[in-house]
Amino acid sequence: MHRMKKIAIIGLGLIGSSIAHAVRRGAIAAEIAGHDASADVRARAQVLGLCDSMHAQAAAAVRDADLVILCAPVGAYKSIAQEIAPHLKPEAILSDVGSVKSAVIRDVGPFVPKNVHFIPAHPIAGTEFSGPEAGFASLFDGRWTILTPVRGSDAAAVERLKGFWSALGSQVDVMNAGHHDLVLAITSHLPHLIAYNIVGTAHDLEKVTEGEVIKYSASGFRDFTRIAASDPTMWRDVFLNNRDAVLEVLGRFNEDLSQLQRAVRNGDGQTLFDWFTRTRAIRRAIIDTGQDVPSFGRLPFQVYVPPKKAKAGKKKKKAKAAAKTKPKKPASRKRRVSRRR
Amino acid sequence: MHRMKKIAIIGLGLIGSSIAHAVRRGAIAAEIAGHDASADVRARAQVLGLCDSMHAQAAAAVRDADLVILCAPVGAYKSIAQEIAPHLKPEAILSDVGSVKSAVIRDVGPFVPKNVHFIPAHPIAGTEFSGPEAGFASLFDGRWTILTPVRGSDAAAVERLKGFWSALGSQVDVMNAGHHDLVLAITSHLPHLIAYNIVGTAHDLEKVTEGEVIKYSASGFRDFTRIAASDPTMWRDVFLNNRDAVLEVLGRFNEDLSQLQRAVRNGDGQTLFDWFTRTRAIRRAIIDTGQDVPSFGRLPFQVYVPPKKAKAGKKKKKAKAAAKTKPKKPASRKRRVSRRR
Repeated sequence: MHRMKKIAIIGLGLIGSSIAHAVRRGAIAAEIAGHDASADVRARAQVLGLCDSMHAQAAAAVRDADLVILCAPVGAYKSIAQEIAPHLKPEAILSDVGSVKSAVIRDVGPFVPKNVHFIPAHPIAGTEFSGPEAGFASLFDGRWTILTPVRGSDAAAVERLKGFWSALGSQVDVMNAGHHDLVLAITSHLPHLIAYNIVGTAHDLEKVTEGEVIKYSASGFRDFTRIAASDPTMWRDVFLNNRDAVLEVLGRFNEDLSQLQRAVRNGDGQTLFDWFTRTRAIRRAIIDTGQDVPSFGRLPFQVYVPPKKAKAGKKKKKAKAAAKTKPKKPASRKRRVSRRR
Repeated sequence: MHRMKKIAIIGLGLIGSSIAHAVRRGAIAAEIAGHDASADVRARAQVLGLCDSMHAQAAAAVRDADLVILCAPVGAYKSIAQEIAPHLKPEAILSDVGSVKSAVIRDVGPFVPKNVHFIPAHPIAGTEFSGPEAGFASLFDGRWTILTPVRGSDAAAVERLKGFWSALGSQVDVMNAGHHDLVLAITSHLPHLIAYNIVGTAHDLEKVTEGEVIKYSASGFRDFTRIAASDPTMWRDVFLNNRDAVLEVLGRFNEDLSQLQRAVRNGDGQTLFDWFTRTRAIRRAIIDTGQDVPSFGRLPFQVYVPPKKAKAGKKKKKAKAAAKTKPKKPASRKRRVSRRR
């Protein structure tokens, strides 16, 4: 791709700040203009030096920008679009990073001037952390970004945006907005809803204390808590704006769960065993394609020592030292992992 | 704790083999005798050198053992107990590692000789890998093991077993079997059922391909797949043997999910926002208590490069090199994480 003169990032949370870092890393634009609706976030972003210029008004940030990316919660897009539309540079690309795409086209589309290229986009990447301090340059490396061009999107502009996301480290796919919303409903929105739900259920049980849930979370529960710690505003807006697709996959999920529930109630071991067997293959494929690490990085060589607990730390050290005298174990582990590939 | 002369491990999967490694690491017993029902597993365990002696019959393995630990799927406990009971050494401890405890007491209890100390136990630790090659010495470090002594359990024997698990690196709790089963139903069994269910639902959707699910799994779905790859036999037995507690928490889960579903259908943003806000605190507590690592070890300094993909590897290297020239980012990240503690 050729270098851009100026890009504008509207919204400086996890994704917006990560784009700023990645643009700097790749020297992708000469100038980054930033805006966030929150004065506090703007001030923190300035301390971090995320942008070359910071603007209290989105309209001021987008002026002369070759590329404008909306990184605010999607619920705010409509009013932002209305505000910035008259100030967009001719031939500029207007894009975004929202987790839903049909609703974005509905909300933003009507305000886009004819001489501006509106190409919605969605980088499939994230952590459970929020805010301008949460961003980092490698967030998009090896992940996928989906572009959902609208009817009449300029092919050359789509190529330019593809080049931008490739330069940020991402792989790029193109599909229509409706299909995107269904794919994300099952891969992202339903998992988040379920995770939020189960963490809430655990929280409300009277017979099991919250302390017990936390203490014994390594037995499965903790895997759900990461995504149940994601930004509440962003996720509220996702569910408000992808209702039909979410309800469709949730209906399927409920049907399946009724079947498993019946198998548990009836002591139907064969149904349970068959179900639990076929789900292993999907996990293996996700690791093979590099979309996750085995054991979430929980393999023995990455043992996490919580800070401020000298005693636990000492125990780990002792264990490490002991492990060093037996080099056979890590080797055999490596052998196994590679055999599975 | 004082060193044991001989321990017997009945079942050499992930947990059994990890116990063997951890016993060696801590020099906790002079001799480890092993048994597995599968001749193939016994052969592989011998190649790995997991035990000092390997026995085709469980009865032979337990002879003269001070501590016998059942590490087979709980569905097999009854027949194992029946087989080994006459061969247990007087004053030996008979324990296990099963994920359910009331059923274990029901199945094993009746066979235990009067002069043997039966103390069921459950180490809350695991990975999604199975088999004798999956074990490693640090699996129990910093995790919790729950002992559920039965009526009349000898206090000194309970202390000995506590000492054993501490020496393996674990923290130890004691509670009654019924409470254990309810706590685990919410922290482990329900999460596994839900994870198995959602992975199955995704697999069966006609409008979204499995390739798409895998490709875009970083958006939430992948977090569910790890536990949905756990051993099918073990998990079938868990659900067959903790039916009532699982159905109780599943009922609560379904009630809550109906509420969230209604909020999505009605566009009730406030209910969604409130629900999504309170679940963040639990995640924070789990990290603070050392039961998980932030971002599952997915922070930028632990980027995973899939093997056999030279191109992707190069991109990562370039990214790493670029990151090195900007030392400000990792520092600011650290600052933020510690601020949250």
